[in-house]
Amino acid sequence: MTEQEIRRVYLDDLAVGDRFISRTCALDAADVKAFAKSFDPQPFHLEETAAERSFFGGLAASGWHTAAITMRLMVESVPFSDGLIGAGVEISWPRPVRPGDALHAESVITGIVFSKSKIDRGFVTLQTDTFNQRQEQVQKLVSKLLVFRRPG
Amino acid sequence: MTEQEIRRVYLDDLAVGDRFISRTCALDAADVKAFAKSFDPQPFHLEETAAERSFFGGLAASGWHTAAITMRLMVESVPFSDGLIGAGVEISWPRPVRPGDALHAESVITGIVFSKSKIDRGFVTLQTDTFNQRQEQVQKLVSKLLVFRRPG
Repeated sequence: MTEQEIRRVYLDDLAVGDRFISRTCALDAADVKAFAKSFDPQPFHLEETAAERSFFGGLAASGWHTAAITMRLMVESVPFSDGLIGAGVEISWPRPVRPGDALHAESVITGIVFSKSKIDRGFVTLQTDTFNQRQEQVQKLVSKLLVFRRPG
Repeated sequence: MTEQEIRRVYLDDLAVGDRFISRTCALDAADVKAFAKSFDPQPFHLEETAAERSFFGGLAASGWHTAAITMRLMVESVPFSDGLIGAGVEISWPRPVRPGDALHAESVITGIVFSKSKIDRGFVTLQTDTFNQRQEQVQKLVSKLLVFRRPG
């Protein structure tokens, strides 16, 4: 198969238990602060001294930054035919991401439901765990994704 | 009260039903593509022609972009004393955000639980609905937030 063919994985090709492992993505203090400045401008994401006095005890990435990096890693590692189209998600952040961390995402299919009303599609439940370089979990994400069946 | 005092709202000061309305934040096609390039590089977030042929029928913002903008609006409008510290969230995206949309977020407290083991804190459940300029809902977010009690 060509690379393009390999990437076109349809709902019919998927099974509960299928796993997808991403590459690793590192982030530094400048990345943490840049994301926070745009989207989550709180002291513990922006400035070391204020962060040390906060609940986090030091500079920590916004959970939304962790989620966005995880999405990037999922787009690269989960090869559904028409892309990753999320209907809804649940997220928890069991521990903070720190500058210098290197993250990777491990996804597993935990559910597949074919639509009864629209026969060309269905929903896949995908659990994606994000880990740092010490294999400590920094995010748990459960996504409900719209996935299309093979045409014809 | 000084502005700093006004912003220090503790768990003791909050009640179910309290509402917080944000300012409006507009985004354009360049914003949509820039976020997507960094965090969600899929054709329907990156390029108009490909987007028209996709499920979205035109360029659409990444759901994670909508979530990040909503966080920015929450940070500015929800004045909890030690910031917005999320333990976990649920999100759904009932319709896409388009270039040119102007978003605002309406938050309401739906639950308050005081911690039994740590008497200085508790958890607030906050429902945040994000709307476009036509008052169409583009995101539903339910957050479980760690909030501290007034010291002493």
